[in-house]
Order: sequence, then structure tokens, then C-alpha cells
Amino acid sequence: MSILVVGSVAFDDVTSPSGTMKNILGGAATYFSLAASYFTQVRVVAVVGEDFGAEHEAVFTKRNIDIRGIEHASGKTFRWGGHYSDNLNEAKTTFTDLNVFESFHPQIPKEYEDTEFLFLANIQPTLQANVRRNMNGVQLTGCDTMNYWIKGARTELAETLKLVNVLLINDTEVKMLAHETNLPRAAQKVLAMGPQALVIKHGEYGATIFFREGAFGIGRHPFRAPTLPIEEVKDPTGAGDSFAGGFMGYIASQEILNREVLKRALFYGGVMGSFAVERFGTERLQLLTREEIDARFQVFRELTHLE
Amino acid sequence: MSILVVGSVAFDDVTSPSGTMKNILGGAATYFSLAASYFTQVRVVAVVGEDFGAEHEAVFTKRNIDIRGIEHASGKTFRWGGHYSDNLNEAKTTFTDLNVFESFHPQIPKEYEDTEFLFLANIQPTLQANVRRNMNGVQLTGCDTMNYWIKGARTELAETLKLVNVLLINDTEVKMLAHETNLPRAAQKVLAMGPQALVIKHGEYGATIFFREGAFGIGRHPFRAPTLPIEEVKDPTGAGDSFAGGFMGYIASQEILNREVLKRALFYGGVMGSFAVERFGTERLQLLTREEIDARFQVFRELTHLE
Repeated sequence: MSILVVGSVAFDDVTSPSGTMKNILGGAATYFSLAASYFTQVRVVAVVGEDFGAEHEAVFTKRNIDIRGIEHASGKTFRWGGHYSDNLNEAKTTFTDLNVFESFHPQIPKEYEDTEFLFLANIQPTLQANVRRNMNGVQLTGCDTMNYWIKGARTELAETLKLVNVLLINDTEVKMLAHETNLPRAAQKVLAMGPQALVIKHGEYGATIFFREGAFGIGRHPFRAPTLPIEEVKDPTGAGDSFAGGFMGYIASQEILNREVLKRALFYGGVMGSFAVERFGTERLQLLTREEIDARFQVFRELTHLE
Repeated sequence: MSILVVGSVAFDDVTSPSGTMKNILGGAATYFSLAASYFTQVRVVAVVGEDFGAEHEAVFTKRNIDIRGIEHASGKTFRWGGHYSDNLNEAKTTFTDLNVFESFHPQIPKEYEDTEFLFLANIQPTLQANVRRNMNGVQLTGCDTMNYWIKGARTELAETLKLVNVLLINDTEVKMLAHETNLPRAAQKVLAMGPQALVIKHGEYGATIFFREGAFGIGRHPFRAPTLPIEEVKDPTGAGDSFAGGFMGYIASQEILNREVLKRALFYGGVMGSFAVERFGTERLQLLTREEIDARFQVFRELTHLE
């Protein structure tokens, strides 16, 4: 089945202990769609400027990603600069030039209206809600957000959360959103805001999915997919979006939707995130095979599997 | 089989968001031995002062812990005060009065010389090494340490590490010890210093065991035992020592020593750590049953188990 991602396409300047790369294709929608493309048909709604050329389009089309929803506007594409020091978990933003992204109003092409799965990458919550309201046939909606909206657009975000099935955020964000420092209690508070499931990303330690009582199965036992920290982290940019792409892409590829599928999806999220950081930008995500992905899935599974 | 722990017995003043408790029995050897006592016969070598009375002895003896190795010295027992704010992962020390612990020179009673397993809790590295050298019949030695010794007694610690089989430390400590911020690379560097296996504790995310090539089995695939953060953390003091008690205690209870045993031990470590933090001091560890322990082992196992 197909999945639609709505989010940013960007050009990034990244500095990490492994070096500096400028003008590399990035953005949440880019990482998400490349990661998801190994599992299912992906469609993108985003906006780019005049500096987005045929070579950038090719990154998507080579992976059979449908980019009819990428709007070409006059001006420059969104640009972001970030710096990672030894602590690779946190980027210091050096600049943000929103450019054409500043006035982004997602338009869903007619050809996309039958899409079964939707992922609302990190954009302004009211824009997220509007997209969701325009996609009536969607079976499951995933959603990301960030500290900036949790602090500055809490009311709007609360409205959006009523419309989504799965929210994917990190430890810091869930605690901030819930006004609660204990993780399981914070998770319960966020689930009460709307989503049936909440995926909390723990960086190099993996992710936990919490369920609302009875959602997608019986009870409310959480599930954890660990990841193994890898020896060579070149560029952590896009790890969370690649996680979301693996998670949502795997779900969209399955005939049924239950907890066992969501558990496996959580592992695939960790797998795609771990590949993304091995090279600068989307380089690694462009050149994977499904065999490599499934081999790493097995490694992560073995990592915690008792006989 | 039996296990000997050498370490501190203390009285702690603890303040956490759940309240304040003064003069509670603590210390690494106390947490360790209570946790290990649910698996095997435990022996303790430590030093206490005149303020250590029959009611404190009873905490050990009720769990059948052999305290013939606890030396009674004139003066006061080691006292520590700590404060946890909302971030329960880190204690701010308010005071440390070493008292009788300052001149602690561990003496191994003759009756303890046949002990098969040894745990060197966090004390000065040369004292740890001396104990190990005096215990020739030991099958496996576990060891803890801390930032203070990594910074201030690196040479002595390096000597100790040549004598131990398993080192148990946390993320920060392993990176500091290896001068390396990438976790898997730091693990390999520490394994090259002596231990055959390295347990890295990740706080609420569980722990990973790294093996030297060929140690306890084939290859060097690491293994992760996740823990589930619990809803009510009253007092994180002693979580690491309780982890070590569960880990080493389970190992000592088994007929054979291979990777499968070490993997299960890692889960039992997480289980005992998670119980310890549910109440102030050792309250929870004093009143457990093996059934409760095995039930939580199953919960942690299910947490990451794919069909």
C-alpha cells in the first residue's frame, strides 16, 4: 500500500567529528521517503526552490518515490546548518534559512487522495491537522513534532494530536509535552491527548512503543526495540526521520495492522535510523538493499533474544 | 555456589522528589549482597563503626548473608548524603564522611577462602587487586569502579583490570576510561585492558554486555538487556550495586558459565536494579520473593521479544 509524507526538503551544511559537508540534500521528507521506499510506494508533498535540480529529483525517482506533490516555488530551498561535537546526540544549529518553506501550504495532488497511510513530518501543527482533515481515506496517520511547537503552539498541537494514530517523538519531547519527568507516566498523559500509540525514541538505545488500553491489541504492555550503537557515526542528521520511514513504511507494507506488526515496525525503524547515520546526508539510504536491511533486523533481534 | 562481595556499608541521607530519609542503611556491599541473596549464598567483607547495631546486622542475617567478614572498628560508619532532583539519573552529593571506611583494608576470613565467585565493589583499585590476589580459588571476578578512580588512580585501576573477568560500569565511565566517545569502540578498548566481558549500564535503558573475541562462547556479538522505566522511582541510590548483585548472584547460582547464562544474568541485573529504586534504601530488596523476581524477568523478556 502507499504512504504519503508531508514535510521539508532541505539543503544542509553539516559539521561532525568526521568532517564537513555543504549543500547536501536533506529535510525530514527526504530522509523519511528514502527509508520508507524499501518497504512500500512513497509519495511526497513538500516545497523546493529554484536551486532544486534534476540531480536532486533523481535521488527520489531512483527509489521510485512519487514526487508529483513536490511544489516548485520561486526562491531558494529551505537551508539548515548544524554542528555536532563529540556528543553526537545533539546538533547545534548554526543557521536556519526557511526560504520557500516559510510560506509552505501543503497541497495534496488529486492523484494522492487514495493514499492509505500518512506521515505528518515536523511542520507547524495546524498545517499537519489540515492535511489530515483533507485525507479522508487514510487508515493510519503517524506524526512527528518538536520542542519548538510543544512550547510555542501547544494548543494547535493538542488539536493535531486528536487526529493522529501514532505520535513519534523523543524522550525530551515527551516529557516536555506531558509536563512530567517520569517516562511511563509521561507516556500515559500523551496517550490521553489522542494518539492510540506513542513511539518514544531513545537515540542510541532504541525506542519504546506505548499503547492506549486496547489499541491494536489486548492490554497496554509497552514494547522496546533496542538498537546497537554503531562504531562509525558520521552524521546523525535525519536519524529520527529515517526511523519514522522504516517504522511507517513497514506498517504500510503489511496486510494487517496489529501489535505484532507494530513491534516489528519498531525494529525496522531502528534499523533505518542506524543506517542513516553511517554516512553524511542520505548517501547510505540511497544505496541499501532489502537484504542488508533484513540482515540488520536480525542482528538487532538477536541483540536481546534469549533462547 | 557462594559469592563474596568486598565493598562499603554505609548510612545514607537521601532526598528525592519522593521525600527525605535519614540514616538509612546503604553502601555498595549492602545493596549487592541483598540483591544476590535471592540467588545464592553471599559473604561480605566490609567495615562498620560502633553505630552499626543488631538491627542493621539483622538486615543481612534475615537474608542468610554471611557477615563474619564485616569488621567492627571504633568510630562511625561511612556516611553519605545525596540529593536527587527531577532528573533521577544523577545524585548530587551533599556530604561524604568516610569515617572508619577511610582506613579500610579488606581482610578475608579463613572461612571465606573457598568462595567461588568474587565481586569487587567500588573501592580503591589497589585494595581491589589485593583482594583478588588473595583469592586463588575464585572462578570468576566481577568489578565495579567510578569516575574518581578512573581520573585519580588510572595506573592502579589498569593493574586491577588485568585481574578481573567482568567489569561493570556505566556509559560515562566507559567513555572516560577509554578516552573514546563512541560506545562500541570504547568497549573494545576497555576489553583490551583485561576483562573478558564488559557490562555497560545505561540507567533506565538497561545494559549491554560486550565480549572479548571467544570469551565465554563464539564471536563477539554484544547483548542488550533492556529494562522498563518504572512509574514510581523513589530512590535511585544503590541501583547499580543491586544490578551487580542480580547479575553476579545469578551467575553464581548456575552450574555452567557460558554466554546464555551471562545474557540471563544481564536481565536479572536489570530486574534487581528496578526493584531497588521502588523504595528508599534497601526496603524493597529486603522483602522480595523469587517469584516476584522471576515474574519481572518475564516482563522484561517480553518487552523486546518478537514472535
